[in-house]
Amino acid sequence: MAKVQFWYEFASIYSYLTAMRIERLASFHGAQIEWKPFLLGPIFAAQGWDDSPFKIYPAKGRYTLRDVERICADRGLPFKMPESFPQRSLEAARLALIGAEEDWAPVFTRTLFAKEFGEGASLTDRAVLADALRAAGQEPGELLQRAGDPVLKQRLRTQTEEAQALGIFGAPTFITEDGEMFWGDDRLEQALAWGTAPP
Amino acid sequence: MAKVQFWYEFASIYSYLTAMRIERLASFHGAQIEWKPFLLGPIFAAQGWDDSPFKIYPAKGRYTLRDVERICADRGLPFKMPESFPQRSLEAARLALIGAEEDWAPVFTRTLFAKEFGEGASLTDRAVLADALRAAGQEPGELLQRAGDPVLKQRLRTQTEEAQALGIFGAPTFITEDGEMFWGDDRLEQALAWGTAPP
Repeated sequence: MAKVQFWYEFASIYSYLTAMRIERLASFHGAQIEWKPFLLGPIFAAQGWDDSPFKIYPAKGRYTLRDVERICADRGLPFKMPESFPQRSLEAARLALIGAEEDWAPVFTRTLFAKEFGEGASLTDRAVLADALRAAGQEPGELLQRAGDPVLKQRLRTQTEEAQALGIFGAPTFITEDGEMFWGDDRLEQALAWGTAPP
Repeated sequence: MAKVQFWYEFASIYSYLTAMRIERLASFHGAQIEWKPFLLGPIFAAQGWDDSPFKIYPAKGRYTLRDVERICADRGLPFKMPESFPQRSLEAARLALIGAEEDWAPVFTRTLFAKEFGEGASLTDRAVLADALRAAGQEPGELLQRAGDPVLKQRLRTQTEEAQALGIFGAPTFITEDGEMFWGDDRLEQALAWGTAPP
């Protein structure tokens, strides 16, 4: 089955939009999704941004909120911004990285995004992370410990460097097996069609 | 008939994509399009950019070219980047402003965009501007003179200030009669549906 990579960042609102629908669409197209959590922070920093571009460029930031609000209304998705934005997504991304290797990343990621942008929950709240782990069938205790493990920290750094080397500059980003890159929730259908097209 | 404003910039590739299809879609939706040429330069400058964001952020710039290439292929539109980018769109925008008042902006704009991004022609080439004026049924002589007229210059400045006051930060942007703003060629269908929805 054709594989399509889904690169996402827990602090990204548009990644929320995609996470909630990608498996449904992938199954329709006959694609297999590889869940690739990474951090946008280091990538933004490399291009001179020390905060979310939505805060650096307020007009765009205001527009974005309205854009997501309208899309969520269309899709019947709840939308509530967390009090602090962007959120510290480090631990969430590290846990999702374990999940991606053990096959529970989709449920963990959807649950966490639904809490973050559907209910306004904080990603640094360990109870929230624990709930998402439990929803994915995992025991939180040992996993929350591992989020501080230097080996795992390094793996997330490596994954983020890989994103940067691929030319990724935002999230969500989709990469097909032949190396085509698609950026944004609004390119998801196009990416899946491309990734599953007969040669 | 419901009116939808189409704010566009001749140096913007995504504005090209929209210009070539907006009247067809508007007629399907039952919307009337108001063609609003403006300049992104002063708006970008106000947020600290002195060049195209595609040049300031090279990874995004490279992606954008590929994105437009793919969309043009899907839509059967020719695509050829002009040698210099972004182009100086001042005269083109001033002429389109006259066209918008006299109702020949759509043909002039489409012709000019097709030359610019379909054939790689230069917007500062007066022969190119003259051809687009003729295609729109206009005599170029006097109009090309008027492009330097201080009153017209001021009108374009005012139109650009209006764009900025509306919160516009990129092109194309669509604004419906109830004040909703939509940014990007990929939001055109949504804007037209919103703008023509029964109250």
